[in-house]
Amino acid sequence: MTLQLFDLAGADPARRFSPYCWRVRMALAAKGLAVETLPWRFTEGARLAAHGAEKVPLLLHGDRAIADSWTIAEYLEDRFPDGPSLFGGDGGRALARFVNAWADSVQIPGIVRLVVADIPAVLDPADVAYFRTSREARFGQTLEAVQADRVAQVEVFRRSLLPLRLMLRAQPFLGGAAPLHADSIVFGGFQWARCVSPFPLLAADDPVAAWRQRMLDLHGGLARQVPAFD
Amino acid sequence: MTLQLFDLAGADPARRFSPYCWRVRMALAAKGLAVETLPWRFTEGARLAAHGAEKVPLLLHGDRAIADSWTIAEYLEDRFPDGPSLFGGDGGRALARFVNAWADSVQIPGIVRLVVADIPAVLDPADVAYFRTSREARFGQTLEAVQADRVAQVEVFRRSLLPLRLMLRAQPFLGGAAPLHADSIVFGGFQWARCVSPFPLLAADDPVAAWRQRMLDLHGGLARQVPAFD
Repeated sequence: MTLQLFDLAGADPARRFSPYCWRVRMALAAKGLAVETLPWRFTEGARLAAHGAEKVPLLLHGDRAIADSWTIAEYLEDRFPDGPSLFGGDGGRALARFVNAWADSVQIPGIVRLVVADIPAVLDPADVAYFRTSREARFGQTLEAVQADRVAQVEVFRRSLLPLRLMLRAQPFLGGAAPLHADSIVFGGFQWARCVSPFPLLAADDPVAAWRQRMLDLHGGLARQVPAFD
Repeated sequence: MTLQLFDLAGADPARRFSPYCWRVRMALAAKGLAVETLPWRFTEGARLAAHGAEKVPLLLHGDRAIADSWTIAEYLEDRFPDGPSLFGGDGGRALARFVNAWADSVQIPGIVRLVVADIPAVLDPADVAYFRTSREARFGQTLEAVQADRVAQVEVFRRSLLPLRLMLRAQPFLGGAAPLHADSIVFGGFQWARCVSPFPLLAADDPVAAWRQRMLDLHGGLARQVPAFD
């Protein structure tokens, strides 16, 4: 059975920039699974609704349609137990949920304030009005206003990465000596940013930047090969 | 070989309030290991120096002296492999380091701003001057000034627990269906606070408060039995 993934794309169909889709792309690669990615745009809801879903990532596997990046990772771990483990055991699976919650509630909201107004420029023209309207309603201000203070705000963001930075003093990956899915969860946010914005999130000498480079090297440079700003 | 733990105590030798010592107390109990705790005060550095150490927790096991709560947890896991695992596998051990880093850099600094001026009242008289002088030098202000805005600051602290709160929507412990050492790491901070201050850190309806109660129930109510303010 082939695996297919609806994957958020920009005007350039090769520009894939959803942090949640990247969590899944990296999980599939870690499992050694081939996947056909299907470029998808925000205004193509009908293509997901046909499978009972509303958002990407959406994985198709035979007659199953699995939504939500965490649910997909657990599906891959359980359905393909012979591949390398995404979690490194039950404890690793449970604690990856904490990492997922940290990424969703600290890292992603931190990044969005730094890059959101750069996103329309890379979107398919059909998506621009939807994106601006929906996000400006969410923030209650223009996208430009959200990131107007980003030169100051990036310092707040960098401080919020302290748990990651302290962890990297002890080991090269969240997973320890080698990456686990927890690394992919956090990497997804940084990959999103580099695909949509030239704004540098990390200081060059930040250990988090070195870890990000190690993640870009994984799986034959999978994440490095897409259109991005660095 | 008996296990002995130098454990920070207040004027009441039964009041044990170091968050890092509590990480170890909970780890020892999780492993089912008996320990003799040795009440220790800040001004008794010579008792640690005799074992080549400067800080508590300090575990004595035969002729070994092991310092640092993380190092002690790994020592217990590796030296006593037959007891319940503290980490739930290699992935769990690696990711517990991230939890440890989060607790050290987000949770503990958040709590200290809310309770630090309440600590002198529970200290042994011999420790009071040392504690006040060393902490006021660290903060660059009086202890009372540090926590002067705690009614507002506690809201910031509660927001910083969002990763924990989101995780608890999916499972009752960081460790999943049952606690792992990662739970003890985070619990240590809350146990410290309840042993030194009546100030409520958590809203009553916060899922984190319910988790804290579950942690207080563990090991026959080990952490509930010491002198505390709730």
